[in-house]
Amino acid sequence: MSTFQPDTVVIGGGIIGLTTALALSERGQTVTVVDPGRREGVSSWAGGGILSPLYPWRQHPAVNALAKRSQQVYPELCRQVRDRTGIDPELRSLGMLYADFPSHPPLDRETARDWAREQGVEFQELGGDELPAAEPELSPVAEYGMRMPGISWVRNPRLMRGLRSLALDGGVEILDGALALRLREQGGTIRGVETDAGSVEADRVVVAAGPWSTQLLGQVGWDLPVRPVKGTMLLLQGWHPVLEQVVMTGSHYLIPRADNRILVGSTTEEAGFDNRTVLGSVRALSQAAVEMVPETANLELETFWSGLRPGSPDERPFVGPVPGVDGLYVSSGHYRNGVVHAPASAELLAAQMTGSEPPLDPEPFAPGRSLSEGEE
Amino acid sequence: MSTFQPDTVVIGGGIIGLTTALALSERGQTVTVVDPGRREGVSSWAGGGILSPLYPWRQHPAVNALAKRSQQVYPELCRQVRDRTGIDPELRSLGMLYADFPSHPPLDRETARDWAREQGVEFQELGGDELPAAEPELSPVAEYGMRMPGISWVRNPRLMRGLRSLALDGGVEILDGALALRLREQGGTIRGVETDAGSVEADRVVVAAGPWSTQLLGQVGWDLPVRPVKGTMLLLQGWHPVLEQVVMTGSHYLIPRADNRILVGSTTEEAGFDNRTVLGSVRALSQAAVEMVPETANLELETFWSGLRPGSPDERPFVGPVPGVDGLYVSSGHYRNGVVHAPASAELLAAQMTGSEPPLDPEPFAPGRSLSEGEE
Repeated sequence: MSTFQPDTVVIGGGIIGLTTALALSERGQTVTVVDPGRREGVSSWAGGGILSPLYPWRQHPAVNALAKRSQQVYPELCRQVRDRTGIDPELRSLGMLYADFPSHPPLDRETARDWAREQGVEFQELGGDELPAAEPELSPVAEYGMRMPGISWVRNPRLMRGLRSLALDGGVEILDGALALRLREQGGTIRGVETDAGSVEADRVVVAAGPWSTQLLGQVGWDLPVRPVKGTMLLLQGWHPVLEQVVMTGSHYLIPRADNRILVGSTTEEAGFDNRTVLGSVRALSQAAVEMVPETANLELETFWSGLRPGSPDERPFVGPVPGVDGLYVSSGHYRNGVVHAPASAELLAAQMTGSEPPLDPEPFAPGRSLSEGEE
Repeated sequence: MSTFQPDTVVIGGGIIGLTTALALSERGQTVTVVDPGRREGVSSWAGGGILSPLYPWRQHPAVNALAKRSQQVYPELCRQVRDRTGIDPELRSLGMLYADFPSHPPLDRETARDWAREQGVEFQELGGDELPAAEPELSPVAEYGMRMPGISWVRNPRLMRGLRSLALDGGVEILDGALALRLREQGGTIRGVETDAGSVEADRVVVAAGPWSTQLLGQVGWDLPVRPVKGTMLLLQGWHPVLEQVVMTGSHYLIPRADNRILVGSTTEEAGFDNRTVLGSVRALSQAAVEMVPETANLELETFWSGLRPGSPDERPFVGPVPGVDGLYVSSGHYRNGVVHAPASAELLAAQMTGSEPPLDPEPFAPGRSLSEGEE
């Protein structure tokens, strides 16, 4: 149970909750994080850590704007985490290679090319004969590749541990193992939250509980259209460096870690809150990995898991005040971009909560925005 | 360390070692089993427990003869284990369905049919339209099936625990966690074995250490041509009964357990003593499972593992006295048929060691038999 009344309670100890708590703390607020302490099935831990939307040229401009702001922040954030906590989030900036295989629909080359030119994003196109030099272990069946050398990634479980440590060092209180049960609201004003370890009173509450946010906000009559979308990952243990960069085809990617591990992702499954890994997903991922990079067939499968992403109808997160309840805020619905969007979402929300200038337009992420098809 | 000098030391606590110890004990001998206590990578634990060679009609008659003897023994053995130890090896006698898919080379129907007729083995052939009734969840792509209703299987890890308990109850001493280091031989006569937990003296030693037998026997100058052959398995957790029987296509099979789990096997990989599971094997097994029974795609993948089978050049085990060293015996090289052949191999060896009538001709399994191609 909390020993003091913080300025703000953040519900959720995932990457959104932790970065939000840090941002508020840096702005002089006292913050308590209510964290059920569960890692299994939580997408902050389960994801791959690529610091870009997977196909940025297909995204809503606001999704890319939020990502861009995060990309500016990440190098310094990772340095801080490493220097202050001794935990290295392994930020790697080795780029990403999108590969075309005859068995898949081809990449939308022109759209990507135009987008990269407009955005000033570094972009290379590679013919089949140029691919072996760019990525020696890529299957020779690949016909064409697009390389975006500016894409980075982190080792997200390490980043999570580091952020947690950073938050604690910075005076953030973390109620570990506490599950938020009920929002406390009175006459249209938030009062705090009841957890299974007691109540915490606060004049401001941020719901950053991923797909579990929906149920909490429903208690105060707010229908947050966020749903769990399961994603499965495989972890391979390499004995030597296999990949130079992230490699992606279709919906599947391979992420090389600094210790020669390779993450294989991912699936998007609508299965409610069931985070068990089904055989069909492992089949799809193992098949895709071997198709892209045949050498992965010889690597050890160390383990596998699945996490629940907070899916949003327009694939944009909900970041801002919850209409109708004073002092209640939400930051959820980041879908596949939780790690990508976390630092910028935290800045955006903290600015709104403290009345300072937001780093980018909050409107596209407003919880009360219209989600009807006609207006998209 | 052993507290007395047993009549026989059995090196190996796998299914061959345990059944051999039991058979000798039943014949009035005192027996000590040297068991490193390792389960990981050991095929007795890792296998699927089908009580038949996978394609019996393609086997050497001696392999089937040994299997047939075991099949006669298993029901009573399983009953004994269950009644005396309370551990149920889950003997299931629901038959096996071999299915033809257009993507695989067709079954050798005529050979199988002839073999079954000659052997008096129950055998049914099913056209594509008859398969749904025989196995409702089998993929409709299957074109033809052969059913052998007499094939049974056990839950081998339970059988192992039960046999161990039965052996201990029967007075067999098990040196748990003891690794055999060296055979002790003097002037052409065995004297015992040195383990990392001390020496055990005995006038008779049985090497039943699976693929690890080769190194031990090499110490006394006997070149046992047994090598590790890795096999990978997947364990699925079903929420409802999916299969009526074992289903097999090509080199892959699905075994339904009584609790709705399904085992998916297996691969044959030459990778020395490396029992790590590689992605390529998981890919092959998951693909085969979904191809045979599409519903498996929706089942939870609970875990996976790999075991090392003791491969033999002619796929027949080596059971009998080791030429040149009095009192030294071997029972190894059972390859994919360790569980199938264990009780009969144990009887066969115990008969030879105690001078009684063997249950079948020992010659095809003699350690000194010729292995040259021309004589096969």
